[in-house]
Amino acid sequence: MSAVAALAKSAQSDFPGWSRAARERVELALDHVLPAAVRSPAKLHEAMRYATLGGGKRVRAMLVYAAGEWAGVGASDEGIAHLDAAACAVELIHAYSLVHDDLPSMDDDDLRRGRPTVHVAFDEATALLVGDALQALAFEVLAKSSAAGRVAAQVTLLASASGSLGMAGGQAIDLDSVGKVLAWSDLEAMHRAKTGALLRASVVLGATAAHTPTDLQGAALDRFAAAVGLAFQVVDDVLDVETDSATLGKTAGKDAMHDKPTVVTTLGLERAKALSHSLHGDAGHALSELGGDARRLRDIAEFIIGRSF
Amino acid sequence: MSAVAALAKSAQSDFPGWSRAARERVELALDHVLPAAVRSPAKLHEAMRYATLGGGKRVRAMLVYAAGEWAGVGASDEGIAHLDAAACAVELIHAYSLVHDDLPSMDDDDLRRGRPTVHVAFDEATALLVGDALQALAFEVLAKSSAAGRVAAQVTLLASASGSLGMAGGQAIDLDSVGKVLAWSDLEAMHRAKTGALLRASVVLGATAAHTPTDLQGAALDRFAAAVGLAFQVVDDVLDVETDSATLGKTAGKDAMHDKPTVVTTLGLERAKALSHSLHGDAGHALSELGGDARRLRDIAEFIIGRSF
Repeated sequence: MSAVAALAKSAQSDFPGWSRAARERVELALDHVLPAAVRSPAKLHEAMRYATLGGGKRVRAMLVYAAGEWAGVGASDEGIAHLDAAACAVELIHAYSLVHDDLPSMDDDDLRRGRPTVHVAFDEATALLVGDALQALAFEVLAKSSAAGRVAAQVTLLASASGSLGMAGGQAIDLDSVGKVLAWSDLEAMHRAKTGALLRASVVLGATAAHTPTDLQGAALDRFAAAVGLAFQVVDDVLDVETDSATLGKTAGKDAMHDKPTVVTTLGLERAKALSHSLHGDAGHALSELGGDARRLRDIAEFIIGRSF
Repeated sequence: MSAVAALAKSAQSDFPGWSRAARERVELALDHVLPAAVRSPAKLHEAMRYATLGGGKRVRAMLVYAAGEWAGVGASDEGIAHLDAAACAVELIHAYSLVHDDLPSMDDDDLRRGRPTVHVAFDEATALLVGDALQALAFEVLAKSSAAGRVAAQVTLLASASGSLGMAGGQAIDLDSVGKVLAWSDLEAMHRAKTGALLRASVVLGATAAHTPTDLQGAALDRFAAAVGLAFQVVDDVLDVETDSATLGKTAGKDAMHDKPTVVTTLGLERAKALSHSLHGDAGHALSELGGDARRLRDIAEFIIGRSF
């Protein structure tokens, strides 16, 4: 079945079928762009594959595909290749950030997606280089396969979402907040950088893979991404106190254990839940303003915000 | 004075004058692209600036400018902006790699360019994030300011030179070689990845900033860059055994101390020196085949290979 036919078929299915197809697509694409585990330096490549393949919800890839479908990019083989590249790029950035976040000098975590973290399964130096090499690969994949004329915008967007004013900067604020009581506005700003920036980039990379949306559409996409991105973290923090490690696939309650302020410790459990519902509403409003067939974006918002409660 | 006039003036000067002008250009450009130290997250931005500004030979930036002059890119303000972006990008990648290489889990070095390394001056988590954010910034700067139509090629080149088949991969092989006796061919392959790939990328980014060279020119540039890149490491290893830490501005003899094979321990001092002279010859031949005004590329080869002996 051609990629277009496969995607068209999955487009007919319900969200579990569509999201399974999206996860399979990005897994296949990642397997293709990652160097083979036998290729020298073999230990590094094996560890890069260990860090990236076979796990995760792939929320960022799903946002790329869903936004791409909204924009009509997925209707050609070429468009699908652009979306695959963007989906790989955001998942590679996400995978690198997890490997570095788990290091002893950062969160010092031994368990990730139910498996030993990279520095435990391999060693610390390898984990450092895995993260470095995955970041480089993300930009290589995106630059190689973006639509002609869209490369500069796509690479700039991913880089700024990943850097000191995005994900890495959010992580720095997070580390500095250990043992502190943060105002909600500061915690919110931290999450918008640490998690929100890459989620927003995922939506925008998908929506703009082939052309630039109108200003109104861009603003609606931004509002949608901002709401979903923050909701993602709010729900994570709620799950972190309400779920055990086995169900979560990672060490539960670790932020509180590390004496980091969380949405729940800052707002309280009930207000945190209320906030997630309010963000759910914001995401829906943004999609109504966006117009077009935003069904899968709506599904993902449900999936993220309705994960448990 | 306009950028073009300043560069034209420095083009008339001898190599010390030209290289000083090139170092000042890239320092100014880096100062401009790095976020201000007071901007949040301030500690991260201060550390990024500490890691990047005010030091280093700027060999990679010089290669960009010299190759750009050969290609005639520096004759317009627009061309100079493309070269500044490429020079910043390679220096940002180089700076990030030094910060990560110096970490306790890697080379565990306390001294760099005569100053405390980033994890000593700040802390280990900050050093990790500094490297991550500098890498993202390198791609952002390059994507934003490359010539239209050249972005995909430029970003792809820098990313592959930095990743698991380039610099990061060479570093992984280097770490795995601790305590081992390597064949010269393996050590050479390691250096071509660890140091050579980014030096080659510097030459090619400068030479191709505005247009694609002919196949013959491309091949000559590659041969030049390969010879200079390897010579750079050979000379470094020779200096490492012949110079003390104060003169070198970093811990001398550290590879031997870490029980890592070096060019000198593998080939012996005399053969290592002979190799650097032979590579010097290769670089010169490549430039003769390249044709055009390759004066500054030739000067840089002299500068690198004639550093001490």
